[in-house]
Parts: sequence; structure tokens; C-alpha cells
Amino acid sequence: MLAGASALGAGAIVTDGGSASARATARVAPFYGGHQAGIATPRPGNVVLAGCDLRTPNRGRVGALLRTWTSAIATLTAGRPTDPADSGETTGQPVAGLTVTIGFGPSLFDGRFGLAARRPAALTPLPTLSGDAIDERSSGGDLVIQACAEELVVATHAVRQLLRLAGTTAGLRWLITGFAPSTANGEPTRNPLGFIDGTANPAVGSNAFATTVWVPPVSDQRWLVNGTFLCFRRIRIDLAAWDALSVADQQVVIGREKRSGAPLSGGSLKSPVNLSAHTPTGALAIPPDSHVRLAAPQENRGATLFRRSFAYERGADPPHGKLDAGLLFLTWVANPAIQFVPILTALNSHDRLGQFTTHTASGIWAVPPAPSRYSWLGEELLSGR
Amino acid sequence: MLAGASALGAGAIVTDGGSASARATARVAPFYGGHQAGIATPRPGNVVLAGCDLRTPNRGRVGALLRTWTSAIATLTAGRPTDPADSGETTGQPVAGLTVTIGFGPSLFDGRFGLAARRPAALTPLPTLSGDAIDERSSGGDLVIQACAEELVVATHAVRQLLRLAGTTAGLRWLITGFAPSTANGEPTRNPLGFIDGTANPAVGSNAFATTVWVPPVSDQRWLVNGTFLCFRRIRIDLAAWDALSVADQQVVIGREKRSGAPLSGGSLKSPVNLSAHTPTGALAIPPDSHVRLAAPQENRGATLFRRSFAYERGADPPHGKLDAGLLFLTWVANPAIQFVPILTALNSHDRLGQFTTHTASGIWAVPPAPSRYSWLGEELLSGR
Repeated sequence: MLAGASALGAGAIVTDGGSASARATARVAPFYGGHQAGIATPRPGNVVLAGCDLRTPNRGRVGALLRTWTSAIATLTAGRPTDPADSGETTGQPVAGLTVTIGFGPSLFDGRFGLAARRPAALTPLPTLSGDAIDERSSGGDLVIQACAEELVVATHAVRQLLRLAGTTAGLRWLITGFAPSTANGEPTRNPLGFIDGTANPAVGSNAFATTVWVPPVSDQRWLVNGTFLCFRRIRIDLAAWDALSVADQQVVIGREKRSGAPLSGGSLKSPVNLSAHTPTGALAIPPDSHVRLAAPQENRGATLFRRSFAYERGADPPHGKLDAGLLFLTWVANPAIQFVPILTALNSHDRLGQFTTHTASGIWAVPPAPSRYSWLGEELLSGR
Repeated sequence: MLAGASALGAGAIVTDGGSASARATARVAPFYGGHQAGIATPRPGNVVLAGCDLRTPNRGRVGALLRTWTSAIATLTAGRPTDPADSGETTGQPVAGLTVTIGFGPSLFDGRFGLAARRPAALTPLPTLSGDAIDERSSGGDLVIQACAEELVVATHAVRQLLRLAGTTAGLRWLITGFAPSTANGEPTRNPLGFIDGTANPAVGSNAFATTVWVPPVSDQRWLVNGTFLCFRRIRIDLAAWDALSVADQQVVIGREKRSGAPLSGGSLKSPVNLSAHTPTGALAIPPDSHVRLAAPQENRGATLFRRSFAYERGADPPHGKLDAGLLFLTWVANPAIQFVPILTALNSHDRLGQFTTHTASGIWAVPPAPSRYSWLGEELLSGR
């Protein structure tokens, strides 16, 4: 495993605090080398996700922006102000495990910058499927910024500095904040459905994780080796309708027990899902249209995802209406075309959970590896011949 | 001081964690007796603010809703699920200092419920001033819910349960989430302008605090004695324009040093503002149009506010545009007509900070005292003769 792949490496400072958030406040995530932070890094309590569009036709200026951002991210994630014009609202605050992750959208390769030949084949906009209500103004972007931290103010501060430093080279397209329960010892937490989330994730550091997430050395684009793809859907959940279901009915939709997280095929939280188990009455224990069956690798030619999602709550939409809340579904995969897209499509067609969910924003970005101390994010893409 | 006015009373459980958020995770704020929690309670990291409208013409049903909410708030703030239909996403999570505060808007007294004669004279919609861009769909509401906690998921969970329990009696009008830096030992933190905030607040527990915040025994409405008023403005800040100012220019706008928080009249953070101090060149040290001068009690017939504000970040607005971010300006006063409104008006007319700010939502609510163990929130208002 490369240096940056250890979620919290030598730079980690652990206080004597008793809780996860206490430990996290002084935590410094390493930045240089290997993979970008914010992927294998344990998920903290807050995220800011921002799509940006370039406002220059000049590839040299894009490179200059990424050099500036690289330097700023290194400084911010070490807990220091970017420059004398730093807005200063985190002065005296701990760094709170801040990570900043940068990705490149399909539109970066549309010809404006002479990069069309360097577009990874799998970097194409995610399909809009039946029932989707994608708001293009909250989707896509030439660049994406993911800032994660235990304190939202630390993540918003980081994104604000990058937007300022972008000057007239890039501008904000959309931005959303998300949150997750704090977790002691990286234990799985519950999602807005009330179910334990992420149980099917490959373990960070395992071979399965590496195969799922990191672009392998044999790839169509050398600049993306050791990188990954971020596939994003903002998924609105009709929480009022969901809450009106009995727990028994919710369990049938998901395919797991709500309290324990155990699959309905038996066992406990960590037990493998047994898709062929039957109930005493002869029905499939994990119903045919349940979420865990349709998302299972066995049903998707072995495809897996690494999910690192957050909840969101955006207010009433329409006004005087329902709560616009749900999931910022953030998945990291080595190849969207054979991992994310088939699973998305399978879930869209049959998933009983789909009665309660609407995809309202979407995005895909190629996420380059971390820079070394002597290079910058995307240098091989933008400077290579 | 009444029992509930001690911000963290006998129910507080303090862990051995080293940080403020570690201590807060297991903290239980007291609910019954005295003043409602969430006002004198130290400000935690997160808020959910929701305006609700009643959808019934029946005063009895309003009372039943408030009885249900009272019971649910007591349960939730003690860290327990409301009922078997609790959505469950905080199962296993610490209570994180949750407080839930309920208030009544002017529209509750509009005649639908026979309460017109019980409207406090000071409970009238806040004025819309020049430069305001108030979105009525994000403003007002018959009822307001303020849920505060160290973990956003705990606050969103609480509001979600109250909305569910409201059934068809009340519906969501608008909702917004906010955040604040965590603070060790209740020290003041920085606002989105990068300046130390809340320095002018009266100290919780002082006579000045009580006079500023709590409705006194001699009041036009007996049901509101020991209650307060919440005056709310969502204040959008043009952060890009603000960040483009030099620190020296920012200091002239505010009237304080950015790093230390000391007034420009000299001293340190806690020094009183000396409005008559002059610079060696004979100018006023605190400029005539600076924010601290215009907000100073000396300039407002002694009027003070208790501010307990949070930052917000709502995304790009318009899309492909500027960041919609700023302050959820939450102030608690015994009499809005002689405290909040004059200060609001003074700042609107002259404040140099106004170049960077736009008020985009507004609300005022009368906040009754906490119930006893044998009563419910607003009982004296709704059941009294």
C-alpha cells in the first residue's frame, strides 16, 4: 500500500480524549504521496462538496490554478492559514482531520484545453434513469472539491479559500454540505433510513478495497494510475413516507434487520448475505426486490463499490412542503463503467427502496493520485505530452 | 435564577474527554422548569431552525400538538427515542447536549384560534428595511423549532420526530441548518467575517443577562413571564467581496482588531468599547459608521441583545453564482420593540458592514417558559381563560 493510502499515517496526532470527535480534533491527515486523502480516510462528521467550472480557455491557467490549490491544500490540511488574505474564521481552531480531495469532470476533456485524448474511457456522465429528477445546476462541474472534517467550519473555510484563490480562473457551480454521525473506532453508523450503513464496504487496506477503489497500473490513462473515480448522486428520501412504514416493512425493503443490521438470511451485522436462504414458508429470506439483494456483488457480476456517504438536509422543497433531505451518495470506484453504472441501473429497475428515493443531482469525476512534495495535483494530466 | 436557567444543571454528564465536543457528547441539558433550554445554554456546534404552520382551525388540536411535542422533547433531550415509530438514525449515539426550543409567531394570534387578545404587544413582524431581500417562503411561521446539538444528526433527528408527530396538525414551512465552531470553555469564537463574535453579550447568569433576555413578571401577557422573544434574520454575507478587503479595511468596518478582537479604542478583547476615544490625528478611534459603534448600547438608549448566532452555507445562489453563506442571526430579548428593532434600524441606516450583507429571511416568535413536569409548553396561553 502506498504511503497516502494509510488513512491516518505518521502525521496523526491523537489526543487523550475519550470520544471519536475528541481524537479527531487535532488529527492531521497526510497529504503528499500515494492516494489523495478523503477516500480511505475514516469518514468524519462533515463534508462540503462543491462543483466548479473553469472560466478560462487557457490550459496554462488551469495548471497554475491546480498548483495554487495543491499548495493551499497542503497548508490548510496541516492546520495553517493559506496566505495573509486567509479569511481567518478558523484561527485558533484545531484542524479537525481536514482532508481536501480534487477531481476532474468529463467536461474538462471536452476540447477547450486540448485534453480530449486524455479522457479516461470510463469518465462519461452518469446516465439519467427513469424516475430521476436531476437538477443540472446542482450537478457536474469541470472540477470537484470534497472537503471533509470533524468541524463543518473547518471544511467550509477550506473551500472558501480555494474559491478565493481561484480568482477569475474558476467559479462555483454548486455546493452542498453533508453530515454523518460521529463514530467511535470507525464503527458503522446509521443512515437517514435508520439502518446501519456501509456494512458491505470492503475493509480499508484490504486487497478487495484496493481492487474496488484504485485505478490499477494497467489503465487507459497513465495520469490516473493510483487515482480513482468519484461517482455522486444526491438522493432525496421521502422521509415522511418512510417513517410511516412499520419497522417490519422497512426491513423487507432493505433486506436487513433495523436494530442489529443482520441480513434477513440470519446471523449478525457482519454475517455475509445469503441470497439463497429461504424462510420456513419457502419464500426467499432476502426478498427479490430488496435493496441488499439488488446491490449485492453476486447479482452484479461481482461488482463492488466503496461507499463513503453523508446525510444532507436542505430545507423545505417546495417551500411549505416536504423536507428535502436524504443522502449524498459518494462512491469511489476504479472503473465506473463496470462497477457504479451497472449497480445504479439494477437498483433503478427493481429496488423497492426506489419508491422512497429520487436522484436529484449527479456527478462523476476522475480523481488523480496525490502529488509528491515536488509535483501538483493533475500535473501529469495537464503538463504531460 | 430559576432552575432551568442554569445552562447545564444536575443532569449534565461530563466525560473524561479533553475537548469541548468530547465533553458535550454525553451532556444532557435539563428540560423542565424555569426557562426553555437552548437560550442560556452554551451554544453547541449545530442548529436546525424550522418554521411550521398550523393546518387546523381547531385550538384544541393545537394544544394537543404542544402536549405531544412537550413529551417528545423531554424524551429526546434525555437521549431516548420518542416512540416505537422513532426513525432510529441516532440509535446508539450520545445525546450531544440536545436542546429543543419552541416559539409562537405573530400569525398564531391572527384570530384563527381565538388568541388575538393574548398577543404580546411586541410580537409583530419585524420591519423590512431598505436593502432587505426577505424571502417570505423562508420566513415566519406559526411555530418555530430550534434544535441545537453538538452533532447535527441529533438535531435533525429531533426535528424530524416533531414533524412526524405533528401529523396533519402542522406542516413544515421552511428549515435551515447552521453551524458554529466548537468552543472550549465557552470562549467566544469567530464568525464568517473572521472576527471574534459575541464579545458584547451579557454574561449568562448576570443581572444584565436576565434583564436583556427574560420577560419580567410585570408584562402585558402573563403566559409569557420568564419567557423571551426570538428575533431572527438570515443574513447573507458577500464573502468574496469581504475577503477582497485588506484586514485594515475590515477592522475599520467592524471597529475591532481582527486577530485580538480588541476595540479600535484600545485594550484587549474584553475591554469596554470607548466610543469617544480619538486617534492621534483627531479622528474617532471607533469610526462613526463602524459596526460596534452602531450596535453599542450607548448609541441605542441602552438597548442590548443576547446573540446566539450560527453560520450557514446553503450552496450557490444563483446557481453558477456566488456562495449563499452568512449568519443565522438569532437574538433573544425581553422586548423586541425597544431592543431588537431600534438596533436593527440603526444598523440598517448607517452600518458600513451593510455593504456586504443582505437580510434574506426574518422571523419573530414569543418563546414561553419551560413547562413544569405537570404542564406543557404554551399551556397557559392555550388553556388559560
